[in-house]
Amino acid sequence: MIFIADVVVHLKPVVNDPQGLVVRDGLRRLGFADVHGVRVGKHIQVELDAGDEQGARAAVESMCDRLLRNPVIEDYRIDAVRAVAEAAAAS
Amino acid sequence: MIFIADVVVHLKPVVNDPQGLVVRDGLRRLGFADVHGVRVGKHIQVELDAGDEQGARAAVESMCDRLLRNPVIEDYRIDAVRAVAEAAAAS
Repeated sequence: MIFIADVVVHLKPVVNDPQGLVVRDGLRRLGFADVHGVRVGKHIQVELDAGDEQGARAAVESMCDRLLRNPVIEDYRIDAVRAVAEAAAAS
Repeated sequence: MIFIADVVVHLKPVVNDPQGLVVRDGLRRLGFADVHGVRVGKHIQVELDAGDEQGARAAVESMCDRLLRNPVIEDYRIDAVRAVAEAAAAS
């Protein structure tokens, strides 16, 4: 069965985020004075084959631990794991 | 009132995603043979002042249209807009 998992990888709160600061300043310059802060992370969508949702989630957790996030400075969360029709498989 | 909005900016499905291809190949080399595809987008968390949730959402939509996404190649969605305590405000 084909699953799609949404993974969010973001910097830990204590880690400085220069990209977020630049975006915040850019928004303020455009007139969005009410913006207090911006943090920029990664949104990774993984399409994979797995027996069931639990198996898919376990595989994606393992991917996060081994490649998708840097455990020194980043946290991750798996937002959603949803099954899609077999026919929708594509690389 | 302080709100935090989660915005996901991702490449349109028809746009090639070389970063996603590299991540997919990396996962396969690590032994995750069941990975069909990976797409990498941005997860942007905006902390802002607004009167209510509707106002916060409208402001964030305007930010997406004016700065956060490139409408030629990217789509966006606002995943969540949640109120946080005034005291949690920080830049």
